[in-house]
Amino acid sequence: MVTEPFSPAEVIAVKRDKHQLSKAQINWFVDAYVRGDVAEEQMAAMAMAILLNGMTPTELSNWTQAYIDSGTTMNWSALGRATADKHSTGGVGDKITLPLVCVASACGLSVPQLSGRGLGHTGGTLDKLESIPGWRASLSESDMFEVLKSTGAVICAANATLAPADRRIYALRDVTATVESIALISASIMSKKIAEGTGALVLDVKVGSGAFMKTVDQARELAQTMVAIGNNAGVATRALLTAMDVPLGRSAGNALEVAECIDVLAGGGPSDVVELTVRLAQEMFEAAGVTPTKDPADSLTDGSAMDVWRRMITAQGGQIDAPLPTAKLTHVIGATQDGYLTKLDALAVGIASWRLGAGRARKEDSVQAGAGIVWHVGHGEPVKAGSPLFTLHTDEQERFAGAIEALSGGYSIGTSEEISDRLPLVIEKIQ
Amino acid sequence: MVTEPFSPAEVIAVKRDKHQLSKAQINWFVDAYVRGDVAEEQMAAMAMAILLNGMTPTELSNWTQAYIDSGTTMNWSALGRATADKHSTGGVGDKITLPLVCVASACGLSVPQLSGRGLGHTGGTLDKLESIPGWRASLSESDMFEVLKSTGAVICAANATLAPADRRIYALRDVTATVESIALISASIMSKKIAEGTGALVLDVKVGSGAFMKTVDQARELAQTMVAIGNNAGVATRALLTAMDVPLGRSAGNALEVAECIDVLAGGGPSDVVELTVRLAQEMFEAAGVTPTKDPADSLTDGSAMDVWRRMITAQGGQIDAPLPTAKLTHVIGATQDGYLTKLDALAVGIASWRLGAGRARKEDSVQAGAGIVWHVGHGEPVKAGSPLFTLHTDEQERFAGAIEALSGGYSIGTSEEISDRLPLVIEKIQ
Repeated sequence: MVTEPFSPAEVIAVKRDKHQLSKAQINWFVDAYVRGDVAEEQMAAMAMAILLNGMTPTELSNWTQAYIDSGTTMNWSALGRATADKHSTGGVGDKITLPLVCVASACGLSVPQLSGRGLGHTGGTLDKLESIPGWRASLSESDMFEVLKSTGAVICAANATLAPADRRIYALRDVTATVESIALISASIMSKKIAEGTGALVLDVKVGSGAFMKTVDQARELAQTMVAIGNNAGVATRALLTAMDVPLGRSAGNALEVAECIDVLAGGGPSDVVELTVRLAQEMFEAAGVTPTKDPADSLTDGSAMDVWRRMITAQGGQIDAPLPTAKLTHVIGATQDGYLTKLDALAVGIASWRLGAGRARKEDSVQAGAGIVWHVGHGEPVKAGSPLFTLHTDEQERFAGAIEALSGGYSIGTSEEISDRLPLVIEKIQ
Repeated sequence: MVTEPFSPAEVIAVKRDKHQLSKAQINWFVDAYVRGDVAEEQMAAMAMAILLNGMTPTELSNWTQAYIDSGTTMNWSALGRATADKHSTGGVGDKITLPLVCVASACGLSVPQLSGRGLGHTGGTLDKLESIPGWRASLSESDMFEVLKSTGAVICAANATLAPADRRIYALRDVTATVESIALISASIMSKKIAEGTGALVLDVKVGSGAFMKTVDQARELAQTMVAIGNNAGVATRALLTAMDVPLGRSAGNALEVAECIDVLAGGGPSDVVELTVRLAQEMFEAAGVTPTKDPADSLTDGSAMDVWRRMITAQGGQIDAPLPTAKLTHVIGATQDGYLTKLDALAVGIASWRLGAGRARKEDSVQAGAGIVWHVGHGEPVKAGSPLFTLHTDEQERFAGAIEALSGGYSIGTSEEISDRLPLVIEKIQ
């Protein structure tokens, strides 16, 4: 019988008493949890102690590494091309990943993106892509390599063998009110991105009503924490704080957002989506230390990003020329007066879209491919009485009432002087 | 199906965010835990949040009441005599309960004491009494009533139906490093004492190396917290902070301490044991608002407290005239020089006694009735080279080495100027 080097309570007490956990203590605690020698209640007490007492950057890098060491890691060196990835902390209408991986690939990077499904009012990249008939999120590691090699970009679901400790701890945090820990959020995100094997990483940390971080200060702390973990682990990492007080683009939903992305890839689409896509692509190249083969913005107008899109979607079974699914029912909300759209709140739009069926309340729920919202007028733009403001899409009539209610306090029409302040699209860069 | 009024994570988040839990939230959370609708990991997260963020007096009274409400309560009004009890937070050589309940009964109170077994270096009252041949700790509630009615005092084990929530939470705290919470310690102690149905309560909060509370400030906080809970619940409660830097009396162990108590009940015994017994008896009468029928000190010299002892032990099956068990082996540590015993550390004596077999490391361990330590010289008293300082008692030869090691740094001999300061026997009163 091997004697355990620590007792669980002894290790918990270190963090309870605001001392620093050693690398050996962290490795043992996380590994023993995965083995079942540290019980759920012991990890819960530790999670609460971490939430309330925090972790130093060294502790947090070790904690993240312990998550990574609990599973397998990926390696893309056989591609012979620099890899870079982007992670967004989640927002409303945030479809940037879709055009971005295509732009990055078209300009010379490889993007091995493991992505997730949405929960609550924020959408998930896989949910959006799964609205494309035939498209498969689940790939073996060798299939992932083949797609990446042939198209320069792949977006698929994370394998269960990647950071399994995080998977279990995430579920535990969800029921023990320990989700809201900057340290544990950072370890969760970064363990998967580091295990994914990307050489460089750009974090898009959203700020505002529609984001997890409501203030710039909170977002900056999260960004700094994650950037430190990434760089400590040898992944060239940087972050942008970007606006999520107002939703991105002109639509929220699954197929609705894919359609918007196809517009962007065809050289059109909403200007904020184009701007953020290009900016994040530039950051990915800088972080990877690679000079793009062309201006990323040009890849949207010359069709090269669209080519990557078509090949990438096709490689994962997507019927690229099949029509996107549409919702059975629509409802239009029109303007009741002339004026300006003085407010357009990301959270209200997100909740309305979720209630229409685009999002899920629990992990096991399914989503409607066609559900969501299109806003015909952007923040600060003029409106005419009677003209459409929003089109709501859903398969189920009874969903409209809740969505309309959620939306009702989230926008207003007034004079040009009454247009509310909004955050700049890119607020700050953290390196 | 009844809808739950709260979700567990929502209630945990209140305490996590340093807000005040409502009575409804507390009642639901504790009850749902007992029912199994709040999981172990959720109570663990709550316990850590309570430990780190504390509770207001109102929250803590409600939390304690929720423990009480999880089980049955006792009521002694049919006795027709005022009830009072004492609780000690635990120390080395702390046998005060044994003479005290007899003194209180001899002078007109009824003492319904539910007591516990020892863990670690502090002794347990039941362990001591169980060294008396035939004595039974386990009584039904009606047997308890009969003993109390006929003798005026009873000391027995708490029934499992008393505050069962505390029993489970205590076990959980033990493995999640959440024992060291003043709030949770207080709720645990006070829930059992309040459910026990005593009308008045005196808390003996020990301070010093041999106690759980090492400093007067910690002990005062614990005492104030417990006194508030008791008084809020309608039990007239007060506390004394008393010394546990030096062990009490002249012996630690089980049968060894019973023998010392019999000396005290016979009008002799160590002066500190007599002094603390009499003082605590006076506090019990004051708290109960009852005038003693005689000076408590007189009950030790006139044989009336001894009469209670004999009747009480006999009523619980104890063979009152049978010899007490003795250990198979003894080892004497003698003085190596002339001088004074300049230091006698309670913790060192407690650990040595524990290692000799008087205490247990885990709840399921048994104790040796005869094991323990007698110190022949008290703190500050003169010693002669070659005269005995300590006699160590155990049934197992191999236990001596560890005990001697534990004791070795716990005493010293020097000049009268080198006698270390010690705490006054009674440090402070908290009302």
